[in-house]
Amino acid sequence: MVDLTFDLEPGSEKPLYEQIYDNLVRQIRSGSLRAGERMPGKRSLATELSVAVNTVDTAYQMLVAEGYLEARERSGFFVQEVADTLPQRELPAAAPAVRESRTETPAAFDLTTGGVDTTLFPFRTWGRIQKELLYASPELLNHGHRQGDPELREALAGYLRSYRGVKCGAEQIVVGAGVEYLLGLASQLLRGGTAAIENPGYVRSRTILENNGVRCRCVDIDTAGLPPEGVEEAGANICYVTPSHHFPTGVTMPAWRRSQLLRWASERPGRYILEDDYDAEFRFDMRPVPSLQGMAGPDGPVIYLCTFSKSLAPSIRIACMVLPMKLMDSYRESFGSYANTVSRFEQQTLYRFLRDGHFTRHLARMRSVYKSRMLSLISCLESGFGKEKIILGGTHTGLHLLATLPEGTGEAELISRALDKGVRLRGLHEYYMERREACPDNTVVLGYASLPDENVPELTRRLLDAWGKL
Amino acid sequence: MVDLTFDLEPGSEKPLYEQIYDNLVRQIRSGSLRAGERMPGKRSLATELSVAVNTVDTAYQMLVAEGYLEARERSGFFVQEVADTLPQRELPAAAPAVRESRTETPAAFDLTTGGVDTTLFPFRTWGRIQKELLYASPELLNHGHRQGDPELREALAGYLRSYRGVKCGAEQIVVGAGVEYLLGLASQLLRGGTAAIENPGYVRSRTILENNGVRCRCVDIDTAGLPPEGVEEAGANICYVTPSHHFPTGVTMPAWRRSQLLRWASERPGRYILEDDYDAEFRFDMRPVPSLQGMAGPDGPVIYLCTFSKSLAPSIRIACMVLPMKLMDSYRESFGSYANTVSRFEQQTLYRFLRDGHFTRHLARMRSVYKSRMLSLISCLESGFGKEKIILGGTHTGLHLLATLPEGTGEAELISRALDKGVRLRGLHEYYMERREACPDNTVVLGYASLPDENVPELTRRLLDAWGKL
Repeated sequence: MVDLTFDLEPGSEKPLYEQIYDNLVRQIRSGSLRAGERMPGKRSLATELSVAVNTVDTAYQMLVAEGYLEARERSGFFVQEVADTLPQRELPAAAPAVRESRTETPAAFDLTTGGVDTTLFPFRTWGRIQKELLYASPELLNHGHRQGDPELREALAGYLRSYRGVKCGAEQIVVGAGVEYLLGLASQLLRGGTAAIENPGYVRSRTILENNGVRCRCVDIDTAGLPPEGVEEAGANICYVTPSHHFPTGVTMPAWRRSQLLRWASERPGRYILEDDYDAEFRFDMRPVPSLQGMAGPDGPVIYLCTFSKSLAPSIRIACMVLPMKLMDSYRESFGSYANTVSRFEQQTLYRFLRDGHFTRHLARMRSVYKSRMLSLISCLESGFGKEKIILGGTHTGLHLLATLPEGTGEAELISRALDKGVRLRGLHEYYMERREACPDNTVVLGYASLPDENVPELTRRLLDAWGKL
Repeated sequence: MVDLTFDLEPGSEKPLYEQIYDNLVRQIRSGSLRAGERMPGKRSLATELSVAVNTVDTAYQMLVAEGYLEARERSGFFVQEVADTLPQRELPAAAPAVRESRTETPAAFDLTTGGVDTTLFPFRTWGRIQKELLYASPELLNHGHRQGDPELREALAGYLRSYRGVKCGAEQIVVGAGVEYLLGLASQLLRGGTAAIENPGYVRSRTILENNGVRCRCVDIDTAGLPPEGVEEAGANICYVTPSHHFPTGVTMPAWRRSQLLRWASERPGRYILEDDYDAEFRFDMRPVPSLQGMAGPDGPVIYLCTFSKSLAPSIRIACMVLPMKLMDSYRESFGSYANTVSRFEQQTLYRFLRDGHFTRHLARMRSVYKSRMLSLISCLESGFGKEKIILGGTHTGLHLLATLPEGTGEAELISRALDKGVRLRGLHEYYMERREACPDNTVVLGYASLPDENVPELTRRLLDAWGKL
């Protein structure tokens, strides 16, 4: 007869059969009940524990169903071979506060890029559409088209054609939960290889490319962006560029350089340009420069990526990718079975938002607010510091600008002094993945998207406090 | 002087400066305006075209900004080197209907797996929470924690602990837009290697693993699921399993087999078990079997994956992954810069839905509806066909069952005859990735989640019509 110990609490919230089950599992897994041993009969165990036979029976049935016991007809219940070889470590009831990702000290003014002005979000319209869809379109609960809902892709094709000069049909568009996800798919689609990436540039894009098996070679940009000679030297078959508005320096790649890159790509099969059009909507001086994809055409060697993180909100995870026609078969072969990653309610909300003209009105409004914010920031900074003491760049497009303080005593000090005054910002060095010595010194990146207009003077005062005495 | 041709429509919606711009871009790109050539002066071109000087000036400024022309002080505008080497193919105005992913003939009854009963969705509660959040929490528009909102992860840890026996802290959880996305991250985290996968099994999981650089070896399951000898023979360092409810056969992996797999994993560093707990919520005969992760503990060699596709809706893309503590540093290093892929509004809606007890009530309701639907389907089919002519399996758990027709003349015929009567279903063969000869014949998979209760008798009649005379 096996030797059993039980620790039952009759008054506990946990039913007795579960307590018996728990006790037995523990003893089987610890090896104190050994494989092959015969369990006591239900009746005798019930008597011993002063519980109903049914209670023991339920526990035994659970143990049989889960493979801890074997029921042999007319001979009873036998312990199965389940003893642990792993040391059992239980999680303490109150889990220790384990380190989460590095968190930064909160700052009164956050000028790191990535945020947007949430007060500009079209809550009323977005909310109304969302509510209508939830009640009127229960079919949206089921899976839709794997590349994204066809209506949305049609609307996106139209929008991209009109506003970004992208030449594509809806069937070339893949909707996904963020550019990072889509860039991962694109990397896998290109099956590795070597990418020339902009230096300075998006460190995160490099991480994604590398995580997905693409080797990266940093190529220094010049005043026209990524130079094709550098791409050649890197032995790359892919280049990753932000031609509308280089991140973070703000260079717009001129047509002649685009044409050079297209020529490079067309020289050999298997060469592709990844065009990340992350914030071209926000060009302030004239209409946004049409995309590189549009120059190449619907079957040119360009994979085009764009996001709604800046134009709607970072937390609404909708981005899209336009693939050349010639990659579509290969895309379907590799990813044709993947479910789409964007909630269909959000897809359909965006579709209606585009279809009914809300998006273009919303963009026009954002553009005008951001432009006036940028102008007021420029004018405050220039009048506060004096035009010779602060040089501002990258002011045509996008939601950040560069500030250089010629008399500064180094980027690190600018940043830490600003932080002392409650202003968080990043230095240009952070975007140099290689050859950091080429980075102009005393230059910081000011992302002003989430800075309320009324805070511009106070921000300037704090920066003057921080840097004025340099 | 260069030779220019213009095609202007004064009455068009497109402003004249944009028409002039378009005409010039075309001529520069086609090479009919050659690099280095001097453009006509603004005044003379304006006169020639009978437009205002301003109009030509705007077009020239756009061309300069985009790098088609260069403005040289006091000498005028010169064409840059932008001529195409690529043949220009314009997308026809009405794009040809290009083949989208293969679409299937619509059927009156769709018993392929993947759908859910949308009428069970908690529209009222979900919609109310969503609306409150949209108006009351604009801060949700900005990025949240990259692994997922901490409140949601705390709630998920609690739910998984209570209902799935998962042992983890919130800091081990990664929220993502679907199990497919998370399985991709897990594959990258394990940096390739070889995975033993269940045969038959989820073809899509194999695709994801392979797309992310993990070699896959199919291992035939036995009556207890994936056998460790097979995993050893495959030379695998990873195994991918669905232990709560093997897909599609319905086998629940008994505790002794789980313990064998854990022993296998603990024998060498770098061995991991990927546990896909895709529909364990729907166990009908007793409470769901606790997860394999829970047996291994918070730092055991198990990566646990679960989805809300079945318990909420396939189109609400929320899934989560629980990583062993020892992989967290490596996770943060590789993916620490990735933005989360799930909309924060949906994250927070799910958080409140869990916190306020709606989810457990909703699950209880679904479980009861699905159970009674399954019982009525079983009883209708057995009484219609006769118990010897249709053998039903996999009925303890999940939202599909297996039907074998011993007198059938082959799976393909069963499927095509059913389709003739408007019933779409899949055969068991489809899930055999190798050794299809091992697949029992005349067996089909019946997914009943999206089948309305009142349609069960009509479905049975159609299947009798289709198969009764075999």
